[in-house]
Amino acid sequence: MKLALKEAQKAATLDEVPVGAVIVKDGKVIARAHNKKEAKLCATRHAEIEAIEKATKKVQNWWLEDCDLYVTLEPCAMCAGALINSRLRAVYFGAYDPKAGCCGSLYNLPVDTRFNHRLTVEGGIMRDECAQILTDYFKRKRK
Amino acid sequence: MKLALKEAQKAATLDEVPVGAVIVKDGKVIARAHNKKEAKLCATRHAEIEAIEKATKKVQNWWLEDCDLYVTLEPCAMCAGALINSRLRAVYFGAYDPKAGCCGSLYNLPVDTRFNHRLTVEGGIMRDECAQILTDYFKRKRK
Repeated sequence: MKLALKEAQKAATLDEVPVGAVIVKDGKVIARAHNKKEAKLCATRHAEIEAIEKATKKVQNWWLEDCDLYVTLEPCAMCAGALINSRLRAVYFGAYDPKAGCCGSLYNLPVDTRFNHRLTVEGGIMRDECAQILTDYFKRKRK
Repeated sequence: MKLALKEAQKAATLDEVPVGAVIVKDGKVIARAHNKKEAKLCATRHAEIEAIEKATKKVQNWWLEDCDLYVTLEPCAMCAGALINSRLRAVYFGAYDPKAGCCGSLYNLPVDTRFNHRLTVEGGIMRDECAQILTDYFKRKRK
């Protein structure tokens, strides 16, 4: 999660909403990414999607077997769906997102047994640090 | 929807699950795309995501205001979330997807008032033609 926070910090310096993500397989980091919505002018470019695309390139397979994703903010519906589609093993997130989070807050999509794949979900890891970087960013933006 | 079906047909000839999507703004087609999961070895490359990314490039804005998406199959969680994030106006789909559909089947995410954007959702448009192309594809695959 510390590496994901570093990625979030990178996003903040680039004037992106500071969210960072890392994908780990067999104890090794195979992808690290941050939110690039503004840079790429596209609402699909969340940190999780960027990380998934880097990881699939790395392993040369769309199926991210035995891979775990660490992300500083609870994934939204799009990202929760992408985790299911990519068949990751687990998602560990930092801050909860009561307005859009779909891994426990509004929905918990990755544990829905009706989908053809389920993930382990654990939230609240380093939640204070993960939330603080977002709070600081939005405070600066409002000024 | 006929244009979206043409895109799905393209996907079928490329040995991709045949789903096609088109985005329309002010009566003009601004993006057409098909599923590229196998070509790009990535589970995020659904027709809807491809279409959204083409459309945002075209209008040079992540906010797809006054844009409508036509897709041959009911969007999954990832794609339904991407439609919300990109703030499209409406989604019109063909065949229902009882196993993964999140625009009426398992969930109806784009109409959830807790999200910061809602879409008009209409399913079942040319549903027989849209379902047939999928049925034919999977029949061929099983042989």
